[in-house]
Amino acid sequence: MTYTAEIIGVGTEILLGSICNTDAQDVSQTLSALGINVYFHTVVGDNPERLRQAVEIARSRADIIITTGGLGPTCDDLTKQTLAEVFGKPLVFHEEEAERIRSYFRDRLNNMEMTDNNLQQAFLPEGCVVLENTCGTAPGCAFEAEGKHVIMLPGPPRECRAMLKTGAIPYLSALSDSQLYTHNIHVFGMGESSVEARLRDLMMEMSNPTLAPYAKDGEVLLRLTAKAHSKEEAEAMMAPALEKVRAILGDAIYGIDTDSLEHTVLQLLREQKKTVAVAESCTGGLLSKRLTDLAGSSAVFLGGITSYATQSKTTVLGVPEDVLKNNPVASRPVAEAMAKRAREVFGAHFGIGITGVAGPDADEDGTEPGTVFIALSTGEALYCREPLHFTDRARVRDFAASTALDMLRRYLTGRPV
Amino acid sequence: MTYTAEIIGVGTEILLGSICNTDAQDVSQTLSALGINVYFHTVVGDNPERLRQAVEIARSRADIIITTGGLGPTCDDLTKQTLAEVFGKPLVFHEEEAERIRSYFRDRLNNMEMTDNNLQQAFLPEGCVVLENTCGTAPGCAFEAEGKHVIMLPGPPRECRAMLKTGAIPYLSALSDSQLYTHNIHVFGMGESSVEARLRDLMMEMSNPTLAPYAKDGEVLLRLTAKAHSKEEAEAMMAPALEKVRAILGDAIYGIDTDSLEHTVLQLLREQKKTVAVAESCTGGLLSKRLTDLAGSSAVFLGGITSYATQSKTTVLGVPEDVLKNNPVASRPVAEAMAKRAREVFGAHFGIGITGVAGPDADEDGTEPGTVFIALSTGEALYCREPLHFTDRARVRDFAASTALDMLRRYLTGRPV
Repeated sequence: MTYTAEIIGVGTEILLGSICNTDAQDVSQTLSALGINVYFHTVVGDNPERLRQAVEIARSRADIIITTGGLGPTCDDLTKQTLAEVFGKPLVFHEEEAERIRSYFRDRLNNMEMTDNNLQQAFLPEGCVVLENTCGTAPGCAFEAEGKHVIMLPGPPRECRAMLKTGAIPYLSALSDSQLYTHNIHVFGMGESSVEARLRDLMMEMSNPTLAPYAKDGEVLLRLTAKAHSKEEAEAMMAPALEKVRAILGDAIYGIDTDSLEHTVLQLLREQKKTVAVAESCTGGLLSKRLTDLAGSSAVFLGGITSYATQSKTTVLGVPEDVLKNNPVASRPVAEAMAKRAREVFGAHFGIGITGVAGPDADEDGTEPGTVFIALSTGEALYCREPLHFTDRARVRDFAASTALDMLRRYLTGRPV
Repeated sequence: MTYTAEIIGVGTEILLGSICNTDAQDVSQTLSALGINVYFHTVVGDNPERLRQAVEIARSRADIIITTGGLGPTCDDLTKQTLAEVFGKPLVFHEEEAERIRSYFRDRLNNMEMTDNNLQQAFLPEGCVVLENTCGTAPGCAFEAEGKHVIMLPGPPRECRAMLKTGAIPYLSALSDSQLYTHNIHVFGMGESSVEARLRDLMMEMSNPTLAPYAKDGEVLLRLTAKAHSKEEAEAMMAPALEKVRAILGDAIYGIDTDSLEHTVLQLLREQKKTVAVAESCTGGLLSKRLTDLAGSSAVFLGGITSYATQSKTTVLGVPEDVLKNNPVASRPVAEAMAKRAREVFGAHFGIGITGVAGPDADEDGTEPGTVFIALSTGEALYCREPLHFTDRARVRDFAASTALDMLRRYLTGRPV
């Protein structure tokens, strides 16, 4: 059977707009992956009467109710008490859970004094499955009553995500004999509509596995999902589709089940024992920052120079004066000279140079915002690309940094840059 | 009277977890600022029957219903048709709106061919106030029926935010004879609980204006809000509170109604006609990136060197070899030498040097993650700070960059660094 679910977020701070309801997104993604249909999200404040009302409505229209937030001592365990009441479950004291809370204060919070209301958290609905909180004190729980399944998760996103993984997924998976398995296919250099147009026929004829595209920070993420009884069966079902997608999108696919473009590039550099250095102008350190977001990048990323003031391109980076005199600052020759100098100055195998106008205004030379030149110096050859025009400063910078990473990715995998 | 509101988000992509419901946060913040109580958020997919059900429930418990999404040709104007039906309003053709849509295609989309379903957007509930879409084609609208107010906004966050400002706020403000006026007080270098403890008594005794703290990216934002009939009246009401907050928090306040720490620093540098350059290690270009996020930074930010590989601290940045030989890479002398060299190499008035261990692992010298040294070189003196220990890589980097900006801010305003 296909279950339907409703997610109820509990917290006045969401209704005030102080925080965004990211828990609902995390839970929704998890339920989608499990093949459970989510028909409604509801958010309600720290108010027992309105929470009760929301739960009554959810009970009338969903098989599974998942709550986030409203657990823990500061909110008087609002969610647990209300749900227990609505479903007629008495709260009973779990000695085991009480001991876990005591030891959390002793070991993880360095013997911080534990006030009595913390032990309230050890009262849980009779007969429930206790979901352990690996990142905080408030335990979650799950139970079945009146043919409905109820799961309560903590509100802090880190705790919620952890408990989804360790508690909610195992509980929900047991409700069905088949599970969902997913591959994430990462695409750069092709817009969402272009990807969709190329894959439309394939997507239309598929039912299990399914294929769905998502636009994300100038990239496209394709999610391939199979419903199967085992991982092996799922992989066998997905293999032909994966091959078709590869054939259609070719080298615009930069990775499968990878983290990011920078992750892919760093891994390729590590495998090939090569190093890179960068010289940035309009991206102002963003490429360098992205290459160091990940731990362990120091083995292959040597460093960078942000030559933001035009003069510093000569005085600090060492771009020949005549190159700057004879060309606009945002030009191919300047980008190429910057890439070459980055490589030389740091003694790296590869150098990347980025110069352009991030906007919102044109620069002194009259170059329009969104014009960016990106060069890759490999010691043997120089490659230069000018990416598409955008007008939003943040997007221009992001897309320029991504394009630089993609050029290096293509070079390292023997593809045309 | 105090109105209550419900926000209904329409979009299957939210229920699938593909996107987060940020529109609800934007609308909630706006309503809070207007003194309207939000009691529920609901999210429903692109399904007329379930949307109808959600609207019926909202109608029974709120004075104001605000929808986001489900406008525009690709979703068959689901929201407009459903709301018009529920409230018994016929949709009528607005020639003026049709002409605006035609001209949008002609002028903004470069004569892109306009399919007929685009003109469907010109059908609007009879007697409604049309809310112009300044960033897209789908217009919004607002009307009153059966004692309830209905406002429909587009789903794309940029369009929704713009229409909130230009359309929804004027409509909602007209419902009440008083309005809310706000000052945002930005605090760095003091945790949320510490700010709260110092201000608790003051907050407790206030009712109009009110004062509320929000934790945000390692900073604290204090929102001071007055309900008044005019801006002048509001300012008069807020002035004494503002003075008290200043007296209590002192120079931990880095700005009022400003954008960010980097914005404040760039403005101070511009006013004092001074320049800055940076040398980064563990932050890997993040400080440089933040200083160039804002347009117009090139007048005061000259550039930076990311000396990520230890060797490049000598070869590229010019830190004396003996400083590196006699000290761990993450140490005060290295940070100070980096700051000095950044200033010298770029010929700037100020140099900033950051070296440390972002984590998650200790470095070769055995220095623990979260240990970061930050130095400011002013030509006359060197200042160095070691920020608090965190363990999360992204937070360590963010907090280190913010601390560097705060040191420069303090120096430029004559405060102790």
